[in-house]
Formats: sequence, structure tokens, C-alpha cells
Amino acid sequence: MSALDDLVTEFARLPGVGRKTAQRLAYHLLQQPSAQLQRLAETLRTVGERVRPCAECGNLAEGEQCDICRDPRRDAAQVCVVEEAATVLAVERSGGFRGRYQVLGGRLAPLEGIGPDQLRTGPLVEKVKRGEVREVILATNPSIEGEATATWLAELLAAPGVRITRLARGLPMGGDLDYVDGVTLAHAMSARQEV
Amino acid sequence: MSALDDLVTEFARLPGVGRKTAQRLAYHLLQQPSAQLQRLAETLRTVGERVRPCAECGNLAEGEQCDICRDPRRDAAQVCVVEEAATVLAVERSGGFRGRYQVLGGRLAPLEGIGPDQLRTGPLVEKVKRGEVREVILATNPSIEGEATATWLAELLAAPGVRITRLARGLPMGGDLDYVDGVTLAHAMSARQEV
Repeated sequence: MSALDDLVTEFARLPGVGRKTAQRLAYHLLQQPSAQLQRLAETLRTVGERVRPCAECGNLAEGEQCDICRDPRRDAAQVCVVEEAATVLAVERSGGFRGRYQVLGGRLAPLEGIGPDQLRTGPLVEKVKRGEVREVILATNPSIEGEATATWLAELLAAPGVRITRLARGLPMGGDLDYVDGVTLAHAMSARQEV
Repeated sequence: MSALDDLVTEFARLPGVGRKTAQRLAYHLLQQPSAQLQRLAETLRTVGERVRPCAECGNLAEGEQCDICRDPRRDAAQVCVVEEAATVLAVERSGGFRGRYQVLGGRLAPLEGIGPDQLRTGPLVEKVKRGEVREVILATNPSIEGEATATWLAELLAAPGVRITRLARGLPMGGDLDYVDGVTLAHAMSARQEV
């Protein structure tokens, strides 16, 4: 059956979805009232048409600017730099941040041909130049490429009166010391704090 | 953002997909070239229009009959009865069956209001009456409701010259005796075979 096979193939392209899960999803949808399937199709089409990167920060947005850039209560002088839009969601969920974001759209990865020109830094660089930014929080991933990207950004954005900070590294909550990797443990040790 | 939230909600309706996974899927699709998203939407629409239950056996089909009912090499005198169309796929993958299927579309569940009238048994009952069936293999799930459904079917389909069989129960391959549940182990013990 070609249409059903096509659907399984499309589902299997999603991250974390293998062929068997894709089949389960497709069969599940076909056992529901057909409204659910049509609604999913329609919602996908709408999202594809409406959702674009925010012109200011690169976060996902319906319309010109994203909800965060449009919100006057968010502190425009504190900017959190992340690799992907999905990370904005994670930081928002943590609840501890009331500033704005800059979404790079990736990280420096010379082997994949991703250099400084492929990353969205322009608006932030401009804001720093105009003296509108008090603090830049580098929240790239704690990977080798994320670290390299953070180092590069710290140089790029250095300016008088601008604090450049990096998310703290250390032991994750709920972790077990026996299972923590060596690099994390070494970092937690060297960055230890007085009780 | 309403469209994106709607998409997350729709994804979260799928089995085994929680809110966080649904967000990850939606963000992933929006970071791909938009063709992938449009293709998924289009494929869903096509499947919703074209795929229907097979008029003969209830398996998923594009057109009047499913691929298996249309295949003259499949033995029409041997019928495997399953609860859902997805199980057809599982039995086909096992590679050991060359007969046809009857998909019930559920199992007897009086508490959910699913009685004999809600299950698709008509075509099989007719075939048995006309003497076209040599063996009925009951492949309902090894659950309480699946067992009850099998018992009911065994009576419903009883006819001279028709073998009614049930999938063997016992230890799953690759299992560890320490972790097998008591009912399975008791069954494996009582159905033990000579080496």
C-alpha cells in the first residue's frame, strides 16, 4: 500500500522515531475517527505557513516578532544566547530568566561547513554596539562545539560595560556520583564552593 | 503561539508521545527545510482519504480489498483472527503464515460497551458456514479480554471439519526466567514438552 508506506516513511524521519514506532503511529491514527488525522494534517500545513524565525532574535514566531521580543516586561538588556529555538523552551521552563534571547541557529562546526557567517549574531552585535546590552549569557551546549562557539562569541561580543557569562557546569540534580562522567566531575571539583 | 501549540497538542495525542516529545518533534520539523513538513501534511491527507478497512477482512486497504485478500497465493482456507490491523503487520513480519486474516477491530470488553455486535466477524462466520475454512487460528492478545474473546470465538465458529487453534503461550525468546511473570511461567510449566 503506497500511501500508508509513505506515511510510515515520513514518520520515521522524525527524531527518535524508528520504523516500528512509525508503523505504530500510522496504524494508531487510522484506527481513530478520521477527524484526528485530518486535524494533524491541517495543523502541520498551518504551522508550515505561519511559523517563521523571529526577525529580531531568531526564535520561532507567528508574525514578525516572537512572543518574547514582543513582551515589554522582558529585560532587553539581558540576552541569553542559545543554539536552537528548542533551547528557548527549555530555559523558559526553568523559570529563572526574564531577559531576551538570541537564537544562533546552530553552532560552529567547521567539519560540517558551519562557520561564523552561518550563525545569526547580527542583531545582538548591533545591540551591544549601541550600548543596549548589560549582560550576555552564553547558553550554548556543554559540548566541544558548543564550548568553541561560546569562546568565539565571548571575543566577538566583548565591549566595555557588558558582562559576558556562561551557564554554570557541575553535577546535575538527581545524579549519582558513580555515574557522572570524568570531565563533569573534574569540573565540579575545581569549581567547588564554600558551604 | 497558537499554531505551534496546536501542533504540539496534536502530536501529544499519539500513543507513547508525551508533551516534551511532542515539542521536540514540532521544533525539529520547523528546523528542517519546509518541504518535509508539507510532505508529512500531504501524506496524512492522502492516507486519510485513501486507506479504508478491507471489505473482506477488515485489514487496512487502499481500494476495496487489502493486499493480502487480493493475493491468490494466500491460503483462503486458513484464517488468522486478530484484534487490530497492526497485529496483521506483526504476524506478517514473523514470516510463518501464508493464510488470510480476519481483523475484529477490538476485543470483547463489556465494561467499555464493546460486545459481539461491535466486532467484525460476519465475513468469517459466512465462510465457515459455506465450508471454505479448514483452520481458524485465534491470535487475540494474551490478556484477560483477549482470552475471553478467543473463548467466545471458539464457540461461535465451531463447525464440523474446522480446526480451531490458539497461538502457543510460554516463555518469550530472550527472556530471563527471573523476570517472567508467574502466570506465564505456570503456563510454560503445565504446557512443557518432551525434548
